[in-house]
Amino acid sequence: MQRNAALRVEIEAEFPSVARIPGPFAMRRGGELPELEMVYETWGTLSARADNAILVMTGLSPSAHARSSDDDPRPGWWEQMIGPGRALDTDRFFVICVNHLGSCFGSTGPSSIDPRSGEPYNLRFPELTMEDMARAARETVRSLGIERLAALVGPSMGGMVALAYAVTFPGEVRDLVLISTAGRLDARTIAIHSLQREAIRVDPAWANGDYVDPPTAGMKLARKIGMSSYRTAAEWAERFGRQRTDRWGNAPFGIEFEIESYLEAVARKFVEQFDANSYLYLSRAMDLFDVAEHGNCLFTGLARIDAARILIVGVESDTLFPIEKQRTLADAFGRAGKNVRFVALPSLQGHDAFLVDMPRFQPLIGGFLAEQGVH
Amino acid sequence: MQRNAALRVEIEAEFPSVARIPGPFAMRRGGELPELEMVYETWGTLSARADNAILVMTGLSPSAHARSSDDDPRPGWWEQMIGPGRALDTDRFFVICVNHLGSCFGSTGPSSIDPRSGEPYNLRFPELTMEDMARAARETVRSLGIERLAALVGPSMGGMVALAYAVTFPGEVRDLVLISTAGRLDARTIAIHSLQREAIRVDPAWANGDYVDPPTAGMKLARKIGMSSYRTAAEWAERFGRQRTDRWGNAPFGIEFEIESYLEAVARKFVEQFDANSYLYLSRAMDLFDVAEHGNCLFTGLARIDAARILIVGVESDTLFPIEKQRTLADAFGRAGKNVRFVALPSLQGHDAFLVDMPRFQPLIGGFLAEQGVH
Repeated sequence: MQRNAALRVEIEAEFPSVARIPGPFAMRRGGELPELEMVYETWGTLSARADNAILVMTGLSPSAHARSSDDDPRPGWWEQMIGPGRALDTDRFFVICVNHLGSCFGSTGPSSIDPRSGEPYNLRFPELTMEDMARAARETVRSLGIERLAALVGPSMGGMVALAYAVTFPGEVRDLVLISTAGRLDARTIAIHSLQREAIRVDPAWANGDYVDPPTAGMKLARKIGMSSYRTAAEWAERFGRQRTDRWGNAPFGIEFEIESYLEAVARKFVEQFDANSYLYLSRAMDLFDVAEHGNCLFTGLARIDAARILIVGVESDTLFPIEKQRTLADAFGRAGKNVRFVALPSLQGHDAFLVDMPRFQPLIGGFLAEQGVH
Repeated sequence: MQRNAALRVEIEAEFPSVARIPGPFAMRRGGELPELEMVYETWGTLSARADNAILVMTGLSPSAHARSSDDDPRPGWWEQMIGPGRALDTDRFFVICVNHLGSCFGSTGPSSIDPRSGEPYNLRFPELTMEDMARAARETVRSLGIERLAALVGPSMGGMVALAYAVTFPGEVRDLVLISTAGRLDARTIAIHSLQREAIRVDPAWANGDYVDPPTAGMKLARKIGMSSYRTAAEWAERFGRQRTDRWGNAPFGIEFEIESYLEAVARKFVEQFDANSYLYLSRAMDLFDVAEHGNCLFTGLARIDAARILIVGVESDTLFPIEKQRTLADAFGRAGKNVRFVALPSLQGHDAFLVDMPRFQPLIGGFLAEQGVH
């Protein structure tokens, strides 16, 4: 790829794209943000009628970089799902991925500077909900001239944001794809999230959110607790078994097994990228989310969603967002007379399957979207 | 209960019982202990031929107080399983429970004073293995004049110690009862244990094992991680669901859900009782244990065990010691021509079922032991 160096600089200065949404932006549980900056990336071309847009909502930790591009050739977190001829086919669809409100990859979040004080928000950031994140994403979409999404796709936490989006703006989502997600979480998943938050909170470096150096020990532990809930015992038995390692030295009660080494490497990479306060806000927002709050119960909440088609996908070995959660959603949509399809996938990879088990997810999501009658 | 006050004091001074085992006690992975004190409790009466003794091995955290007694009327950790007419029938059997070597309820462990230095061992305690714990328990049994156990019963970690006992002293165990245990752990369980150890290690109060005040934050987190692996999502959904609480104040990202409140209460109680270094030693000893080391493979290791009858019990919803682990043991014993019975129990309570799901465990264990032809 030959490019003019000056042009390259100019393009880089514009990348990733930022939607500046004028405030004040009132938050659902109180407080407001004076302004929003929402970072997003896009792939493909928006049609003249702006009717071919797919919005992808991320899980807790990824950025808007769902796929590589000329501007950023690094592989994205859903690299194999998005692109020409792929499940989210950029020959046909205009694919958008936003960095969530409250996250830390450019969009306004706890680590952003509060323009009123000139200091980072940290814990002065208002309480965050999936509904706030959905509304910020929706304003980003509208800033591109898109009134209605051809499809809204959300895995994991992204599925909760997608639900919040579809229930709050019911006319604006044609097809809804919910993957390994839930209308609300139950005690054990809340417990896992709570332990992750506790690991961060009890790290003295966290300093009640006003850290200078990040709470690395707490963040690493939080990430490792997460990893242990994302994958399955069967997969790890196959990959790591009881293999030993000596690559991390021999600190007392330190790393001796390959599985510990793997977790350490993943966690170290994570803490270099992710902001601890963002982690706390997003994690808690998941626990607080309950789509039933949009009606009198889960059923009446979900009944407000009027997507033309709904695809719900879950993985049988998922212990963090168990398959019963997706089945409950599908049942409720079915009882409400919605056009819903539910698929329970066998997979060794548990909650993370949508990120790695491409042979199962690509044809399923791709097939569903290909059936769409748009243009 | 009327008792002479002076006598009562005398009895209390003798309670719980202590076996003083002369050293040096050479440890399997190197180092030695100059002497051992092993705390134990007993229920029932030892027969004249000393052939009716059942040794109960505890999981990681309980003491030798498996059942209440006149000396200590507090309910024990297996209160409903032991007693007259109960599964471990004290009208017939002499039941012994030892506090493991390396634990912290009176038996020699990292928090004991090293008589050579006058200081606590802390991390100067030698590396600990299930085999060391088994041998210390066996010496305790022999100090009571018992050459052969009528039965050896071990749940969870206690099952690993029981396996180590039976494989190391093959002529000394008549019946072997292994509950929710494993011949060796796989990557995910090792990961969970490793995260618990990391929670303790990264607590600055741990001070490389030489703490003055215990590392409470790390221990609490370790215990909560444990609880989240002992119980099932289904049980917690039923018990706690999404119920809220405000009993712990409103610290940022603090406790808001009943499940968090429950974990906090359990963890606070635990840190008052359990020594952090003991936790580290016992947890790591579980990960290191591999019964295959007693042969050329798991099969030849297990084939050394010559118990008359073997009962293996597991729980289908156990994610920490998955049912496949018990099935593997049963299959290997079967191929080795042992008299083995395997029972996979349905239970809502996961790994902890043996502590709480008495309607399932009592008749099963009791029935097996009642069939024993002794006396």
